[in-house]
Amino acid sequence: MPPHRDAITDVPGIRVGHWTDRRAATGCTVVLYPHGAVGGVDVRGGAPGTRETDLLDPLNLVEEVHAVLLTGGSAMGLDAASGVVRYLRERGYGFHLGPHTVPIVPGAVLFDLGVGRERWPDADAGYRAARGATGGRVEQGSVGAGTGATIAKLTGPDRRLKGGLGTASEFIDTGVIVGAIVAVNAVGVVRDPATGKVVAGVRDLEAAGVSRGRRQSRFVDIDAFLRTGRGWPQPGGEGAGEEPLEVAKGAADAGGSTTIAVVATNARLTKTQASRLATVCHDGFARAIWPVHTRGDGDTIFTLATGEVDVEGPGYLALEAMATRAVERAIVQGVRLATGLAGVPSASEWLAL
Amino acid sequence: MPPHRDAITDVPGIRVGHWTDRRAATGCTVVLYPHGAVGGVDVRGGAPGTRETDLLDPLNLVEEVHAVLLTGGSAMGLDAASGVVRYLRERGYGFHLGPHTVPIVPGAVLFDLGVGRERWPDADAGYRAARGATGGRVEQGSVGAGTGATIAKLTGPDRRLKGGLGTASEFIDTGVIVGAIVAVNAVGVVRDPATGKVVAGVRDLEAAGVSRGRRQSRFVDIDAFLRTGRGWPQPGGEGAGEEPLEVAKGAADAGGSTTIAVVATNARLTKTQASRLATVCHDGFARAIWPVHTRGDGDTIFTLATGEVDVEGPGYLALEAMATRAVERAIVQGVRLATGLAGVPSASEWLAL
Repeated sequence: MPPHRDAITDVPGIRVGHWTDRRAATGCTVVLYPHGAVGGVDVRGGAPGTRETDLLDPLNLVEEVHAVLLTGGSAMGLDAASGVVRYLRERGYGFHLGPHTVPIVPGAVLFDLGVGRERWPDADAGYRAARGATGGRVEQGSVGAGTGATIAKLTGPDRRLKGGLGTASEFIDTGVIVGAIVAVNAVGVVRDPATGKVVAGVRDLEAAGVSRGRRQSRFVDIDAFLRTGRGWPQPGGEGAGEEPLEVAKGAADAGGSTTIAVVATNARLTKTQASRLATVCHDGFARAIWPVHTRGDGDTIFTLATGEVDVEGPGYLALEAMATRAVERAIVQGVRLATGLAGVPSASEWLAL
Repeated sequence: MPPHRDAITDVPGIRVGHWTDRRAATGCTVVLYPHGAVGGVDVRGGAPGTRETDLLDPLNLVEEVHAVLLTGGSAMGLDAASGVVRYLRERGYGFHLGPHTVPIVPGAVLFDLGVGRERWPDADAGYRAARGATGGRVEQGSVGAGTGATIAKLTGPDRRLKGGLGTASEFIDTGVIVGAIVAVNAVGVVRDPATGKVVAGVRDLEAAGVSRGRRQSRFVDIDAFLRTGRGWPQPGGEGAGEEPLEVAKGAADAGGSTTIAVVATNARLTKTQASRLATVCHDGFARAIWPVHTRGDGDTIFTLATGEVDVEGPGYLALEAMATRAVERAIVQGVRLATGLAGVPSASEWLAL
């Protein structure tokens, strides 16, 4: 067994690289497996930005994927994939068609244009992320595709917190390893599924002066808020003339809320199984983020199976189940390790106030 | 506002009827809206048994659904839909094509043949369920489609507990009401998402003599179990010759694990929105059942929108979010209210031992 770093790089051969621009609050993350892994995808959000996802349909021809790009910059950020393709081609990695080499690099974007300067990862950024990719420890938090990520935007940008990039892995005794890396950028709040508690929610600005002992109450009660359907009564009275907190007009439609992930395993999976694994992994999103998979989310999960270890019935069930655990832990981790950027505080900074 | 019964029947015009055979441990549940509601569906499990789901594709013609059938009996249970169709036709409800009346009754099945006698709901059973449907209080637990439902089958049938039928509703201040009814039949265990605690898990038979104060430990630690990938060491030593608990050979494939639901709302939704609502509602399954959406599950959710109340952006987000809450609460409710049947104890019976 390789060392357990609790990272997607625990899967042998998987390398991760980031390109980060903290001033512009954007970046990208590349997950490399240059020899080609069986790939899958499930696009669940209502407002996705993706490339090379159609070829991952189990009905279609190409089986192998050489890298996956997770990137900020909304639709423009897809440019970064060109750099990853160039990096792989220069080294002879790709799908070989006679004398031609065609690297397959699916990718998905998140919207971070409203944080920091308006800039997005370009082809050069993607190239650098790929060139810097290693199999060791993975930097987490406000880095790579998580650099400009934000969360908890139900009432608009004023109360948002930093999202971030997180990773986690699970080891199964049969030798199967599964790891996830997630860039968390959601309209919803993040909760730890193990306890049901909010890790990073919509900031209750009115409760900012409350003592540290009552920290949990420093987030708005989202259930109560959503039950209003539109407005949140400000504390201090029910009188007229007070401005209610409102569900942000754009919250449901802006594309400002998109969580994107790669799940990798050393298991031998068919393309159909890789696709099904991507579907199940959205359950990890559902447990750690709420609400999620909304019309304005582009929530997308890619899977990579490197084919080193056989799995059968029960082992396959264990792989699916523990993969969702890795996803939910990566989400909580990414948000916990995030640091404030471009005026947006992290959850830990907010709770320490 | 109508009275809040915390049931799908809180949605005006929605009626629910059960047919129950406790001796054979099977049954069916019909959700009626004879005047026709805009329908949607999301089939997420890997082993579904359904009818009339293709017409619910937003690309296809028919917009309105007159009833939904949830039933035991596996594929044979689909017979019950014929009785629901007959009931509606006799009363003139359906899609009118010149002199012809064609009621639209989508449905989904769960596998309960391994509980009690091998019998399934037939057309007469469906007719009776429809005829008995009312808008009032909804009977829950081991009733209707939940009669033969079981859960927590990761290690096979020996340690399973009774699943059941549950319902819940959420009221949004804008006048939108959303209710769910769920027949919970899962290979996985049921947890309360509010606390992360297991409500009904795989019974730890070896810990049966433990005092009431340590009840939580009376369920097997499923994470630890799944991490073995196949075996669960019996307590009392690590020596050779002991029989490990194994993931049931059929657990991943048997079709014995299928949770099926109907979510109804008085909101005015397009067919596309109804379809999207069904997709989001699977997040409620993900939060309350683990693992879920496996290859052996036929997990399916139908939606019905009666069109009485307009929703726009923020209200739509609130509807989606609170619908998933209704789903998760209905699941926990169904399992909490289940009673033992055909030798399978309920969680409350097991915890009271």
